[in-house]
Amino acid sequence: MQRIGIIGAGVVGTAIGVVLNDKGYEITGVHDINTESTQQLVERIGCTAYKSPHEVSRSADILFITTSDSSIENVVYTLAEDGAFFAGQIVVHMSGSQSSEILERAQAFGAKILSVHPLQSFAGTDLAIKNLPGSIFSIEGDREAYGAAVCIVETLGGEYFFIDRKAKPLYHAGACVVSNYLVTLIDFGAKLLETTGIPKGMALKALMPLIAGTVNNIENIGIPKALTGPIARGDLSTVLKHLDCLEEMAPELLKLYSWLGFYTAGIAVDKGTIDKKSMEEFQKTFLRQLVKTASVK
Amino acid sequence: MQRIGIIGAGVVGTAIGVVLNDKGYEITGVHDINTESTQQLVERIGCTAYKSPHEVSRSADILFITTSDSSIENVVYTLAEDGAFFAGQIVVHMSGSQSSEILERAQAFGAKILSVHPLQSFAGTDLAIKNLPGSIFSIEGDREAYGAAVCIVETLGGEYFFIDRKAKPLYHAGACVVSNYLVTLIDFGAKLLETTGIPKGMALKALMPLIAGTVNNIENIGIPKALTGPIARGDLSTVLKHLDCLEEMAPELLKLYSWLGFYTAGIAVDKGTIDKKSMEEFQKTFLRQLVKTASVK
Repeated sequence: MQRIGIIGAGVVGTAIGVVLNDKGYEITGVHDINTESTQQLVERIGCTAYKSPHEVSRSADILFITTSDSSIENVVYTLAEDGAFFAGQIVVHMSGSQSSEILERAQAFGAKILSVHPLQSFAGTDLAIKNLPGSIFSIEGDREAYGAAVCIVETLGGEYFFIDRKAKPLYHAGACVVSNYLVTLIDFGAKLLETTGIPKGMALKALMPLIAGTVNNIENIGIPKALTGPIARGDLSTVLKHLDCLEEMAPELLKLYSWLGFYTAGIAVDKGTIDKKSMEEFQKTFLRQLVKTASVK
Repeated sequence: MQRIGIIGAGVVGTAIGVVLNDKGYEITGVHDINTESTQQLVERIGCTAYKSPHEVSRSADILFITTSDSSIENVVYTLAEDGAFFAGQIVVHMSGSQSSEILERAQAFGAKILSVHPLQSFAGTDLAIKNLPGSIFSIEGDREAYGAAVCIVETLGGEYFFIDRKAKPLYHAGACVVSNYLVTLIDFGAKLLETTGIPKGMALKALMPLIAGTVNNIENIGIPKALTGPIARGDLSTVLKHLDCLEEMAPELLKLYSWLGFYTAGIAVDKGTIDKKSMEEFQKTFLRQLVKTASVK
């Protein structure tokens, strides 16, 4: 078993440490700029708390740098200045937005670099420990270290795929779309309900069973089959009523409604419930609306 | 207990019939243009199958017209021509996209009209029966019939709110946003992952734990708190990387990304993790991108 070091004992670093420790890996050292975070992880898994990052790095065959995304590169710079990397070492970060490129300084010492990112939303340490198994991880970096990456992911109970460095921002954009923009979409729907006079608390609550049902449908029958509603059934008159009502009661949301509708028409064609001509009619309707409200904002 | 009649024995009509029958309501008659659908409901609850809609109407104190949305008005027209409504009767449809207005011909006979709509996505009869309890219903129509509507919803195990006729399309648009456009949003995210080379089946599967986690966060901590990611933490450089990568690898999705980002910046301000100045910087960035890709399509 290889020795693991962890720099950055936040939610992800702590979860990784706890799970790998449970699975029999030796966690040789931990450091966090917040000594309380370091101490919490040390108490949980009984490893050594180091006062400096370079001590952690020197103790570890596999070094996890799980600080905040924006600090990773600084940590690597400091470790390189201190000569704390070594040949054969594997240096890993778990950021979705960054590729392994920010670890490159370690390569000069003969270390191999990886970014290993779980597609998961971690609301807290215990939830993270619970959610890691079953999550799917992207692996990107030095091919010689792929074996170690696969071993880590499988130990964590996850599945994995490999991704090119160049494509990492697009991958991260995809994750942001289904997570961050999902919040925006639900907020959009709730705002429309609130505009009709439904109390704020009730609007979101009223939509949750519908959202859960739709997510279940996507999971069970996939896309495009899970698409229902007026566009999927070619019901342009209902969409025109939506547009009229939005224009009168929530004009600031017309653009987002129309762009989402534009793309939805394409999915309805994929589903086979409308034909291309009908799709074009929907899309023309949405574009007309977009031109009409063209004064940007 | 009042006598119930059902015209239209599709997913919703059947589910309503089964649940109300279980709760002790007398279902006096059923009709569907598809005799097989009629027969299935009759066998399930032991009511009378009528050959014509007007026989059902004459037998019922509360008449549910649960045909497809586009047929409701025709059914009402035929029933009115046949003089099949009567004073004191309550006529109900369960469409989300239509208001009770399409039932108005029944009012000439002294009947009261209602639209009662469950915010739920019904993928099949058994799932509908299972999902009706716990769903939230909108009630709109004649105030004198509100008591009957509340009684029906409570019998079905649901909660309710009242909505103005005028606001019904906006309400329905809200439901379409969080259900139909949710499919579009997930498809968008999956497409970005596929563009990076991840196999099609894997892309959607990889995103599901993240989607489920985000929906849980929305339910547990609400909006704006559930918003995470680069915009919520004011990380413009990550968003700029997304835009660059989208421009190169998936330019057809840049507009949707930018509009969703524009609205997301507003939610981040509500969360309090970025200030108004930072929001404006994000929004300017997205608008610049929208102007740059302004050739519509």
